[in-house]
Amino acid sequence: MSRKFEISVPASSANIGPGFDVLGLALAKFLVINVEIDSSKTSDRKDPNNCIITYEGEGADGVPLDSDHNLVTRVALYVLRCNGIRSFPSGTFVHVNNPIPLGRGLGSSGAAVVAGVMLGNEVGKLGFSKQRMLDYCLMIERHPDNITAAMMGGFVGSYLRELSAADLERVEIPLAEVLPEPAGGRDTGLVPPEPPLNIGHHIKYDWCREIKAIVVIPNFEVSTASARGVLPTAYTASDMIFNLQRLAVLTTALTRSPPQADLIYQAMQDKVHQPYRKTLIPGLPEILASVTPKTHEGLLGICLSGAGPTILALATDNFETIAKEIVSRFNKEGIDCRWEVQELAYDGSNVKQL
Amino acid sequence: MSRKFEISVPASSANIGPGFDVLGLALAKFLVINVEIDSSKTSDRKDPNNCIITYEGEGADGVPLDSDHNLVTRVALYVLRCNGIRSFPSGTFVHVNNPIPLGRGLGSSGAAVVAGVMLGNEVGKLGFSKQRMLDYCLMIERHPDNITAAMMGGFVGSYLRELSAADLERVEIPLAEVLPEPAGGRDTGLVPPEPPLNIGHHIKYDWCREIKAIVVIPNFEVSTASARGVLPTAYTASDMIFNLQRLAVLTTALTRSPPQADLIYQAMQDKVHQPYRKTLIPGLPEILASVTPKTHEGLLGICLSGAGPTILALATDNFETIAKEIVSRFNKEGIDCRWEVQELAYDGSNVKQL
Repeated sequence: MSRKFEISVPASSANIGPGFDVLGLALAKFLVINVEIDSSKTSDRKDPNNCIITYEGEGADGVPLDSDHNLVTRVALYVLRCNGIRSFPSGTFVHVNNPIPLGRGLGSSGAAVVAGVMLGNEVGKLGFSKQRMLDYCLMIERHPDNITAAMMGGFVGSYLRELSAADLERVEIPLAEVLPEPAGGRDTGLVPPEPPLNIGHHIKYDWCREIKAIVVIPNFEVSTASARGVLPTAYTASDMIFNLQRLAVLTTALTRSPPQADLIYQAMQDKVHQPYRKTLIPGLPEILASVTPKTHEGLLGICLSGAGPTILALATDNFETIAKEIVSRFNKEGIDCRWEVQELAYDGSNVKQL
Repeated sequence: MSRKFEISVPASSANIGPGFDVLGLALAKFLVINVEIDSSKTSDRKDPNNCIITYEGEGADGVPLDSDHNLVTRVALYVLRCNGIRSFPSGTFVHVNNPIPLGRGLGSSGAAVVAGVMLGNEVGKLGFSKQRMLDYCLMIERHPDNITAAMMGGFVGSYLRELSAADLERVEIPLAEVLPEPAGGRDTGLVPPEPPLNIGHHIKYDWCREIKAIVVIPNFEVSTASARGVLPTAYTASDMIFNLQRLAVLTTALTRSPPQADLIYQAMQDKVHQPYRKTLIPGLPEILASVTPKTHEGLLGICLSGAGPTILALATDNFETIAKEIVSRFNKEGIDCRWEVQELAYDGSNVKQL
């Protein structure tokens, strides 16, 4: 008996200026995973967990294709093992089509984690809700911004519940002990505890649909680790209040129609992460300062997408002019870019039985 | 010719947990100022600025009644002098009726500043919009939370625009040089510049009207200065992110019907000001920890109102039980309290011609 399904998970943009580790925007650009489970089907390749991966798109030259190494399948194995299932059913074929560039601040790894949890849920017929799947995601990736947007869709804000001591003990267990060793270690047979319930809480804002997202994607990567490494561990009260004030206005300002450029532009300013990341992204301060609602009608706000280097501009008009201005400023720094105009992925991730 | 009008300005609660210096809630408890201008009317009392003040209500035993000292009339004089008018018209009689207790975290001084600006606007027939009057308020009081709520009403979030160097120079001028000396100094004749335009930006959230505000008011004062004095000047990234995440969820969660207690309760937690203010408010940590949606059905969240010592609890039901629980915990610390259930003042401040 054969079974086929397709998982799609959107790219996402996190932070949106002041909402560091808080806000996420799901973009209509989907990581698509086609899965076939057919025990009668064979392959030349062997895999210790019965899962043959093929891959096309962004990262095709570097992403590992054995299920012990590949992030999507490792995460799926984690979910399965939390629920007493040791590996994929024999004859599992996973084809990944990934249009989300890696290391650019568009949530590629968040999308992989969400896809992995959905894959585990689907393969194991676990029947989890999205809210419950979010708990699994947040065991692996403790920053809820991209994860929540990719899972739930639209424009979301999230907080992580403070976990109890008992919960925290459980949080420490899974990835290290449960997932296969990176080199393809033995299955220890351990059934890890399921994640605590409701690790993350979120709210989905009523995004004003006149607003589109322009993403300008430079052709170099910034690793999340290095982008976090440049940030301070402490902030002045005034920088913190600067962001708190803007965040409070921004989330609601982006729901109102018609959107008010003056209100939004200033509400998208940030003092918590962008100023520190300029060393990693040539031209960043000039780009953020030079593209404004005054210079470009239709522009509402501009910020780094996640940890960068992608620039996110929100606008209602003049998409091409705005994008080309940003591109030309990157070009002056000797950096090539491409750009896209995206709608939001309002419904987030999805599974379709084929 | 005689002219009469009445200015009313609501009390307010600031911060609402994570929204330190950001969020404000206008409460339907109004400072009312009755003004009569009649040059034929005389008084036994003399005032250098032609303004005879009478006062009843909270603070009646201590609030100064000469117009050089009284906060409402000093602020009105500031507004008038910015616009070339040196004093009140002869025969100005101001009667203040103030039900807002002083120094309790219910925005009494914010209300006085708003009332003063409205008084100046009205006396001088300046015709300013509320948005413009907000600029004047923010020249005097740089924390927009109470001010914006009192002026605009409802549930609001605000940010202060970063002022230019030229603007900042002007900010430094007014109160010191323009207002009469506290001891009743000479009028210098200086016409100060008007405030910069649009110092503060705000958004009014669509408050879910099922939610009422319980305020429990202990019978001691906490000065804003001492409540600010206990706060640190720097914060860890994790405490900052804790508040950013909750603030982002809270503002929208309080607009949704029916309100979700679990989401709101946790979104009202704070690590930026409340933990530091427990030394000023006996019993605070126990009160915040012991009144929860689990122990008290109908409760949504609980926090310090402004800088305290008033406790603000948001609830849809069981108001009396919740209030009495908080009162009894203050009583155990030897502190008397009163409590009230308030609707929001949705329209904010108001002037009525009589």
